[in-house]
Amino acid sequence: MTDGGAAGPVRPVAADPGPVVSAAERAAMARARLMGEQVLGSTSPNPAVGAVVLDAGGRVVGEAGTAPPGGPHAEVRALAQAGERARGGTAVVTLEPCAHTGRTGPCADALLAAGVARVVVAVPEPTALAVGGAERLRAAGVDVVLGVEQQEAEHGALAGWLTGVREHRPFVLWKVAATLDGRVAAADGTSRWVTGPVARAEVHRLRAGCDAVLVGSGTALTDDPQLTVRDTDGVPAARQPLRVVLDRRGRLPATARVLDGTAPTHVSRAADPAELLAELFALDVRRVMLEGGPTLAAAFLRARLVDEAELHLAPQLLGAGLPLVGELGISTMSGALQWQVVAVDRLGPDTRFRLRPGRHTDGPRDPQEGD
Amino acid sequence: MTDGGAAGPVRPVAADPGPVVSAAERAAMARARLMGEQVLGSTSPNPAVGAVVLDAGGRVVGEAGTAPPGGPHAEVRALAQAGERARGGTAVVTLEPCAHTGRTGPCADALLAAGVARVVVAVPEPTALAVGGAERLRAAGVDVVLGVEQQEAEHGALAGWLTGVREHRPFVLWKVAATLDGRVAAADGTSRWVTGPVARAEVHRLRAGCDAVLVGSGTALTDDPQLTVRDTDGVPAARQPLRVVLDRRGRLPATARVLDGTAPTHVSRAADPAELLAELFALDVRRVMLEGGPTLAAAFLRARLVDEAELHLAPQLLGAGLPLVGELGISTMSGALQWQVVAVDRLGPDTRFRLRPGRHTDGPRDPQEGD
Repeated sequence: MTDGGAAGPVRPVAADPGPVVSAAERAAMARARLMGEQVLGSTSPNPAVGAVVLDAGGRVVGEAGTAPPGGPHAEVRALAQAGERARGGTAVVTLEPCAHTGRTGPCADALLAAGVARVVVAVPEPTALAVGGAERLRAAGVDVVLGVEQQEAEHGALAGWLTGVREHRPFVLWKVAATLDGRVAAADGTSRWVTGPVARAEVHRLRAGCDAVLVGSGTALTDDPQLTVRDTDGVPAARQPLRVVLDRRGRLPATARVLDGTAPTHVSRAADPAELLAELFALDVRRVMLEGGPTLAAAFLRARLVDEAELHLAPQLLGAGLPLVGELGISTMSGALQWQVVAVDRLGPDTRFRLRPGRHTDGPRDPQEGD
Repeated sequence: MTDGGAAGPVRPVAADPGPVVSAAERAAMARARLMGEQVLGSTSPNPAVGAVVLDAGGRVVGEAGTAPPGGPHAEVRALAQAGERARGGTAVVTLEPCAHTGRTGPCADALLAAGVARVVVAVPEPTALAVGGAERLRAAGVDVVLGVEQQEAEHGALAGWLTGVREHRPFVLWKVAATLDGRVAAADGTSRWVTGPVARAEVHRLRAGCDAVLVGSGTALTDDPQLTVRDTDGVPAARQPLRVVLDRRGRLPATARVLDGTAPTHVSRAADPAELLAELFALDVRRVMLEGGPTLAAAFLRARLVDEAELHLAPQLLGAGLPLVGELGISTMSGALQWQVVAVDRLGPDTRFRLRPGRHTDGPRDPQEGD
C-alpha cells in the first residue's frame, strides 16, 4: 500500500481505517460502487464491477459498470469515456483489474495504454485465473492501492460474484413482506396487498438486480405470481431475471403465470436448497432472490443459505394467518437466529429492514444450546 | 386569534398552519411540551401541563411542569421562577390556564398578578369546570393565542388526561417486544431477553410515565415480572406506578413478585378491558401501560381500547412460539387492523416502532368487508 498524497478527513471509526486515499478518491469509490450496482443482474457470471476515472486534477472524466457478458469491462468503458484525459490520472475500481484475456483483453493492459498514474482498488482479485493485475501495473510504475473500503464493495454489487468464487453457489437475497405481527397472509390465504405501492416498486427494483427469482410450488399455486420485472405502469423490463419454481412433486400446472413465456422459467425438482443452488450456479446465476413462502424460506434458513434479507413490514396487525417464516427447529429463545440490522428505512407507509446473518446464526447447532 | 408580531418561518405543510406565533414562542412551546412529559406519571388525575415564561425580550425566564396533586400548576411554578422578569412577558403553556379554584387558585389570576402581556396556549381547556381562563385574561387586556401546535400537545403528555375528559377512561399504551417474525416467546415459553438493554431501559422509562402497568394473570404466572420502575443498576425509582394484574379466575399466587409490597398492586376481577379501565379510572389512573401477553393485548385491540403502541423488534427469527398478538377475529387481509407509524428508530440492536391506530381500525366491523 502506498500513500495517496492528500488524504481525506480521518474517519471516526477506531477499527482498520484502510489505506490512505484522498477525499476525491473516496467519493469516486462510492460512485464506482453505485456504477456496479446499476449493472447488477446483467453481468453474471461476470462480476458487476464499477469504475471511475479521475484526471490528473482529480476531476471525474469517466465512469461505468461492467457490460453484459462478451462486452467490455467497467475499466475499459470508463477509460473510453475519459480518452486522453485519463493520462496521468487515477482509475478507481471496485475490483482489482484483471490480467488475463478472456472474451476481452486484460484490463491492466488497457489502464497502462491509457497512461493512468494510479489505480485505487476496493477488492483484490480472488481468483487464480485473473490475478496479477496489480502486480503488472506496479511493474510498469503505476501506483496501486488495494483494499479501499473493501467491505462496502464486498457487501455491495460484488457480493453475488464473490459468493460464487468462495462457495460455488449463488448469493441468496430473501425478500419477504409481512404485517407487524409477522403474517404474510391472512387466515383465508389472502395476501394482496400487504405492503403499499412504494414497497412493491422496490421489489421490482430488487428483482431487476438479480439473475433469478425463486418461489416454491406452494406460492406458485396459491398466489400465481408472474415474477417478472415491471415498472409502475405494469410494463415489463427489457431484461428479465430467470423465474425459478422449486416443484419437487410436479404440482405446477401448465397454466401457471410463471410459464406464460414472457420471461425464461426454470422448474426444478431439486431435493433441497443446496441442490437447487447448484443447479442455478451451473446456469450462471450469481444472485437469487428468494420470494417464496414460509416453507421455502425456512428450508433456506435452516440450511444457512440466506446471505441477506429484506423485510418489508406493513403497519397492520392480523392476529392470525401464515407466519413469515416456517418451522426452524428452534425451541428456545437463546437459539433464535440472530441478524444484523444493516438499515431501517421507510417505504411509504411501510418499513424496510435490510438484514445480514449475525454472529449467532449457528446458535441452534451448538450442542451447548437448549437452556 | 391575534397576530403574534414577528412570525417564525412559514412551515411547509399545506394544512392548517395554526395561529401566528414567533419563532421564540414555537421553541418555548416545544420546551413546554417537554416539561409536561417530564412530569408524566406524577400528576394524575390532573393533566401533565408544561409552561415556559419568556420575558419581554423573548428570553426564557421560567419553565416547569405540573406538580403532583395538591401542588402548584405548571404556570404558577414557572412564574415563581421568573419573578419580576415575567412582567410584560409571555407565558407559553400546553393547556389553557384554569379559571377555577380547586386545591390551588386559578392560574389565570396568577398570570394576571405576574403582569404577563401575552399567553400562548396549545390546547383550549375542554372541561366546563376549568374553562374561562382565556376569557378572563383577555378581559384584563392580555393577548391570548389558542391552538398553537395543538395536535402535538394532544398527542404528547396531555393524551392521558384528555382521554379521561373525553372518554372517561385511561389512555392505553400497549408495549410489546418481539422477534422480527412476531414472536414474544419461544416454543418452550422462554422470553428473556428478546430485546437488549437499551430497549429494556426504555421500558422502564415508559413505565415511569404511566400511572399503572397492566398484565394478565398468564404473564404474571409465566414470567413472574416485578413490574416496577428500576434504573439500569436495578435500583427502584422513588415513585412507582400502580401494578395491575387482570386475574379473573383468581389464579395469581400470593408468592407472585407483583405482590412483593415494593409498589402498590391492584388485582382486578374485571370481566373485560372496558370494565377494567373503569376501575382504574376510579383509582385516578389516566395512563396505563399494557404489558401483558398476546391474549390480553388481543382483548384490548378487539375492544378498540389501545391508543398508542410501542413495538420493539429484536433482530432475531424464531419460526415458532407465542405470537405478539392473539386472535383478533380477522380472517382476511383487507380486515387487518391499520396503524399509523409515528416514528421508527433504533434502540441499540433493536428497532422501535411508535404506532397509533390508523384510519381503518374499524375495518373488520364493516359489514362490507370479507374479500
